[in-house]
Amino acid sequence: MCEHISRWNARRRFSARSEPTGYSRAVLDCTYRVQISHRTGQLARVMEAIAEGQGLIGDVVTISVGREASEREITVEVRDIEQAERIEGLVDGLDGARVLWYQDRALIRHEGGKLHIDAVRRVATVQEMRDVYTPGVARVCSAIAEQPELAGRYTMISRSVAICTNGTRVLGLGNIGPMASMPVMEGKAVFYRQFAGISAMPVLIDTQEIDEFVETVVRIACTFGGIHLEDISAPECFEIERRLIETLRQPVMHDDVHGTAVVSMAAAIVACRHAGVELGSATVGQLGLGAAGYGIAALMVDGGVGRVIAFDPQEASHARALEKGIEMASMADVMGTADVVVATTGRPGLIDPSMVRSGQVILALSNPDPEIAPEAAEEAGAAFAGDGRSVNNVLGYPGIFRGALRAGAKEIDVEMKLAAARAIAEGAEGDELVPDALDQRVHDAVAKAVQEAAERSGAARPELAATGL
Amino acid sequence: MCEHISRWNARRRFSARSEPTGYSRAVLDCTYRVQISHRTGQLARVMEAIAEGQGLIGDVVTISVGREASEREITVEVRDIEQAERIEGLVDGLDGARVLWYQDRALIRHEGGKLHIDAVRRVATVQEMRDVYTPGVARVCSAIAEQPELAGRYTMISRSVAICTNGTRVLGLGNIGPMASMPVMEGKAVFYRQFAGISAMPVLIDTQEIDEFVETVVRIACTFGGIHLEDISAPECFEIERRLIETLRQPVMHDDVHGTAVVSMAAAIVACRHAGVELGSATVGQLGLGAAGYGIAALMVDGGVGRVIAFDPQEASHARALEKGIEMASMADVMGTADVVVATTGRPGLIDPSMVRSGQVILALSNPDPEIAPEAAEEAGAAFAGDGRSVNNVLGYPGIFRGALRAGAKEIDVEMKLAAARAIAEGAEGDELVPDALDQRVHDAVAKAVQEAAERSGAARPELAATGL
Repeated sequence: MCEHISRWNARRRFSARSEPTGYSRAVLDCTYRVQISHRTGQLARVMEAIAEGQGLIGDVVTISVGREASEREITVEVRDIEQAERIEGLVDGLDGARVLWYQDRALIRHEGGKLHIDAVRRVATVQEMRDVYTPGVARVCSAIAEQPELAGRYTMISRSVAICTNGTRVLGLGNIGPMASMPVMEGKAVFYRQFAGISAMPVLIDTQEIDEFVETVVRIACTFGGIHLEDISAPECFEIERRLIETLRQPVMHDDVHGTAVVSMAAAIVACRHAGVELGSATVGQLGLGAAGYGIAALMVDGGVGRVIAFDPQEASHARALEKGIEMASMADVMGTADVVVATTGRPGLIDPSMVRSGQVILALSNPDPEIAPEAAEEAGAAFAGDGRSVNNVLGYPGIFRGALRAGAKEIDVEMKLAAARAIAEGAEGDELVPDALDQRVHDAVAKAVQEAAERSGAARPELAATGL
Repeated sequence: MCEHISRWNARRRFSARSEPTGYSRAVLDCTYRVQISHRTGQLARVMEAIAEGQGLIGDVVTISVGREASEREITVEVRDIEQAERIEGLVDGLDGARVLWYQDRALIRHEGGKLHIDAVRRVATVQEMRDVYTPGVARVCSAIAEQPELAGRYTMISRSVAICTNGTRVLGLGNIGPMASMPVMEGKAVFYRQFAGISAMPVLIDTQEIDEFVETVVRIACTFGGIHLEDISAPECFEIERRLIETLRQPVMHDDVHGTAVVSMAAAIVACRHAGVELGSATVGQLGLGAAGYGIAALMVDGGVGRVIAFDPQEASHARALEKGIEMASMADVMGTADVVVATTGRPGLIDPSMVRSGQVILALSNPDPEIAPEAAEEAGAAFAGDGRSVNNVLGYPGIFRGALRAGAKEIDVEMKLAAARAIAEGAEGDELVPDALDQRVHDAVAKAVQEAAERSGAARPELAATGL
């Protein structure tokens, strides 16, 4: 009965897998287009069929009303594809109701893509064409050729960021390649624009070689005021970022390392506030030293935390950590010693309640399933426990790059990252672990704090400051 | 008296040079911000001073009205910087008037850049964040990983074009490098969006090496549905384009070669219509075999024109032309033999009226000053003569790429280019050589003709057709 069978099938092969990250666990929002004949009580019967299939009904939207039947789109929260199919069967089993198609809401919302590139102002007259194109544009080009710093003023460059990826570690999906990662990159860009006014362009780079990735970014870097690296696998991501920071004049940041670290640090600050623990003199224990875990532990060291210890069974991660001043320890040592435990292992249930020390702060950040549920940790004696549901990178990168671009910063240094973490932490209200990512005030506060930090630290270059951000 | 002296100075060093392209010759639009005290007849005195300096007054805009004085922006057309300075002095010489700054209008219109990247839809709720970002986005990524052709449906890729340049031949300015060329690329992108709905992103590539340029574009190409090459010097541009066409799955076009050729071909079709000459059986003579000239002559050959002969003193250009079926000839031979002469030499006055044959069609396309003025050519016996003022590439590339993307075309083949040229020619009305580039109907007609041509020629791939363009 499903007309859009190919779209649905595309999803079907994947959707039954666990969700890699996010707010809720293994739940799909499925929209059904249903043709319903005009009979008294017919819509109610459709609703009953969905309820019988254990679906939670959301929006009901009337699409068209014909002579004998109407078409409606009904969004239903389901656990998995089997449940969605069962509900289709139940609705189709009714006399006078027919499922035309049903589909993942996320696919529907992605139809046509999420970004567009548009003119700041339309060109309506020949005079305007003369101004923005030939012949006027030649005078602007000439001015920039003579004084390159004018590029920031007369082009989009200074308020633009490239979101560069090779798609080697996308969410929890792994190495799916650059093109399949595009929806993530577009999503990142949507928030850049909405929360920071930044024009962010995904740049998919089809190579897994470090040298090729670096030289490609270096060659196109002059198009952008900042370089955001995204979803690049470790350990390659560390060398790629290091070499780009060394080579390029503009700020470079791998969001999976530093963006995650900033937001996690903010969560740790808030958690310690809740628990009455002094982070500055605490021992922080990091479980897992992947891109995110290493970034968090390193920022803790840079932030002047008393002592940072870490556990990771992958020995390849140890040298980098030791060089940064992170002490390696066993899992038991970390749990037995640390005042604050941060876990980013991707291993649900890793922390047994028996390991929890009384008075400890525990942030079990792996998504969708944490190393220990906050309730279980607190029951076992933790002073405060949180998970990764609300620890969203969207809280960090838009304001961080906006602040950096407004300062004309040559890099995103430690002071800027710490300022961002503190600004996010200050925005958390009540029992929030971090603020609501949709709250514009947080993003404005982060940008301001980062800009001021850049001005204090010497990273700022006023002559390259972005106008209008 | 000029506050924005550095901006003005940036222009000053260049603006006195001749304009490289465009509608008018060596004219600047200069805007003066003037503070004028409140006295009867004071504005009139300012106008008189400008008139005394031979300035042509355009818009007068009131910016602010204070207690004792107002501020206005007065746009004045001047020939050169000396005249602009003289006018400043004349206005400043008045009692109760003061020039706060004066500036090239084009620079003012470029303030902040001309493009932005924006979300198709804002994210307002947690549900929407779930749809477009995590966790929903993971399902879209997975679907594309499984079925790559879904990328066209669920991302911006299929309706996006990269405008790639290394800035080695920008307008008539020469090799000014990639960053200084950005205003041209942004201008191209403005028209892509306005006339074709295409999201076009400038990509500045900082290399003059053919291999490096090609490999950079190849690596990032999966981000885009089409590759538009722009302002790359000859002969490197020919090899770059050839290799990219061979390597990439999406359409690739160097606009300075093929876009110019399409629009010039359209002008030739219209000129022949005016003159009663049959282009198909005519001898076409091309003067100048640079990127544009070669492209025009090659498209004439591909279009089945009777015979194409060409003159270029640069011997390096001959082999490529001969291989294409273009005959090499002397300047005298071209002028003495050709029914239709197309000149793209960049050498004003190259064609002496004595060289013109009776009944000839002459298109002297170099900007800003043609090889022969149309009036002089017609006086010397030409059946029809035109220059390059209205032969604007904006007439071609937006519709060409829109048609190609709508067809999911694997390339922009000869049939598609010829279809575009005919569609443009059909849009010319009255005594126009080509239609008004601001007329949306022309762009729609080009897109339709190109799409249909792709479907006829076999270049189309319906499974990759862009949705919503």
